[in-house]
Amino acid sequence: MNFITLLDYVGTFAFAISGIRLASAKHFDWFGAYVVGFVTAVGGGTLRDLLLGLPPFWMQNVSYLVVSGFAFLFVVGLRKYVIRLNNTFFIFDAVGLGLFTVVGIQKSIAVGYPMWVGIIMGTLTGAAGGMLRDVLLNEVPLIFRKDIYAIACICGGLIYYLCMYLDLPAAPTQFIAACSVILIRILAVRYGISLPALKGETRPAPKEK
Amino acid sequence: MNFITLLDYVGTFAFAISGIRLASAKHFDWFGAYVVGFVTAVGGGTLRDLLLGLPPFWMQNVSYLVVSGFAFLFVVGLRKYVIRLNNTFFIFDAVGLGLFTVVGIQKSIAVGYPMWVGIIMGTLTGAAGGMLRDVLLNEVPLIFRKDIYAIACICGGLIYYLCMYLDLPAAPTQFIAACSVILIRILAVRYGISLPALKGETRPAPKEK
Amino acid sequence: MNFITLLDYVGTFAFAISGIRLASAKHFDWFGAYVVGFVTAVGGGTLRDLLLGLPPFWMQNVSYLVVSGFAFLFVVGLRKYVIRLNNTFFIFDAVGLGLFTVVGIQKSIAVGYPMWVGIIMGTLTGAAGGMLRDVLLNEVPLIFRKDIYAIACICGGLIYYLCMYLDLPAAPTQFIAACSVILIRILAVRYGISLPALKGETRPAPKEK
Repeated sequence: MNFITLLDYVGTFAFAISGIRLASAKHFDWFGAYVVGFVTAVGGGTLRDLLLGLPPFWMQNVSYLVVSGFAFLFVVGLRKYVIRLNNTFFIFDAVGLGLFTVVGIQKSIAVGYPMWVGIIMGTLTGAAGGMLRDVLLNEVPLIFRKDIYAIACICGGLIYYLCMYLDLPAAPTQFIAACSVILIRILAVRYGISLPALKGETRPAPKEK
Repeated sequence: MNFITLLDYVGTFAFAISGIRLASAKHFDWFGAYVVGFVTAVGGGTLRDLLLGLPPFWMQNVSYLVVSGFAFLFVVGLRKYVIRLNNTFFIFDAVGLGLFTVVGIQKSIAVGYPMWVGIIMGTLTGAAGGMLRDVLLNEVPLIFRKDIYAIACICGGLIYYLCMYLDLPAAPTQFIAACSVILIRILAVRYGISLPALKGETRPAPKEK
Repeated sequence: MNFITLLDYVGTFAFAISGIRLASAKHFDWFGAYVVGFVTAVGGGTLRDLLLGLPPFWMQNVSYLVVSGFAFLFVVGLRKYVIRLNNTFFIFDAVGLGLFTVVGIQKSIAVGYPMWVGIIMGTLTGAAGGMLRDVLLNEVPLIFRKDIYAIACICGGLIYYLCMYLDLPAAPTQFIAACSVILIRILAVRYGISLPALKGETRPAPKEK
């Protein structure tokens, strides 16, 4: 197992933990919590693969199912430690976000899509799992309302293509882009930076459609 | 840019506006509002393309992303005008509905599917974006409860195939079908026509599944 | 129409009934109720086909649309009988669950996927329609919180591969696996067996993602 694979599992683990914890807060049963954790971890990449016309990545390799299983056992078995490890999970989650973004961009480039599709696919890979998680939890998706999350992916994507434009080799390009995502994410949370919310209209929402 | 392309952008713009306004009513941030607008505009066509096994249309052409961006700027920058333009948006939305329905049917015929699949694909193209929008907003989809919306697409689809059956050339067939959708939609809203709602059973909902 | 096809329609009918009844409890209009019924019936198989890269099964054969239509007419026209037939629907639903699971596994094997993918695809075919139904109804998916439902599919899937491992021919393998799903489902409901729910943490849900 090389270093990238290890980071991939760390990200998968952290994403699954986030889904399982939120599912447990809503009193899902074991099966439901596991599924929500798994969807959080692989949902973004699955949506990306469907849009790119590729076979879903997690169906080629049982590891993602297993890593989500470990995340489940961890939440069930080590409940007390989970809360104490909040900061660790946050870092793992940011690492996953950075790595997943880069993976999404690479896959998109491999299929031959231009930059703007690559950035969208990178952002989907990183952020859409959490969106699907919130749909299954019957909540308004958090990424639409709080924090810099998907925006970190978008910035990382822009930096990825900037590095490519500057003719940097693949490895440093990927490293710089992933680190940018992680850094932006951490700084945004640390300094409480977020996007402005849109103000609702004073009149009731339109009913045309 | 020919006339059909212009109409396509008008429809995309109106659909995106509808998503962004509803997102702003729920205090989504800028990113969330833009995404909801974009999903409202391209979600139906994306679902259609995935079901037909085609590459998603908006990934081939950056225009849809840009038009949704203009819709976002419009809602953010010209808030006061947005409410006054309710009737204009309603017409634009109906035009989009008619055009998207016809596009969905054409794509479905091109892949070789029979009439009933074409009508479903036309309806999905027109109406599923609004359904996905409501799922992301964590609301019960409006198209399942109010107004004649998807039904207008279905009627337009039937008229499309009637025209084909009568051996009309492609252009008038498309024109008649799209106008039917627009007309049915406008008349239904104007005269408050809607489908009957199903009455719930007096006993609680079944729990079998 | 052979026996398997008949069972397929019985399952489709029962799944559609479940969706239409729940939609009527939420006062959906006729169109909305029909769509929710149809999605409940074919949604799981559609998700499976998209993930496996196959054309959606219901687009090849108009029967599923028609059977869902009969389910709709049945709920609208024979309201009083519907409640009395609760137990019948429960059995039909269990039969559908068993059959759909086996169909999902077979399709997955035909595409060349290993056992664990087959079990997931079988479970998706049986249980994901109900999940999509609940998303459209804006409810927390029932399969994540109550009863043994998806778990019956997973057990049936394991039994399917056990039979294959024991070199049983295809027909008895399919029969045994489907019956296992049906039996587990019926026994679980009869004896009130369910999975334990996860306890929420005492501190508020994490906000990292």
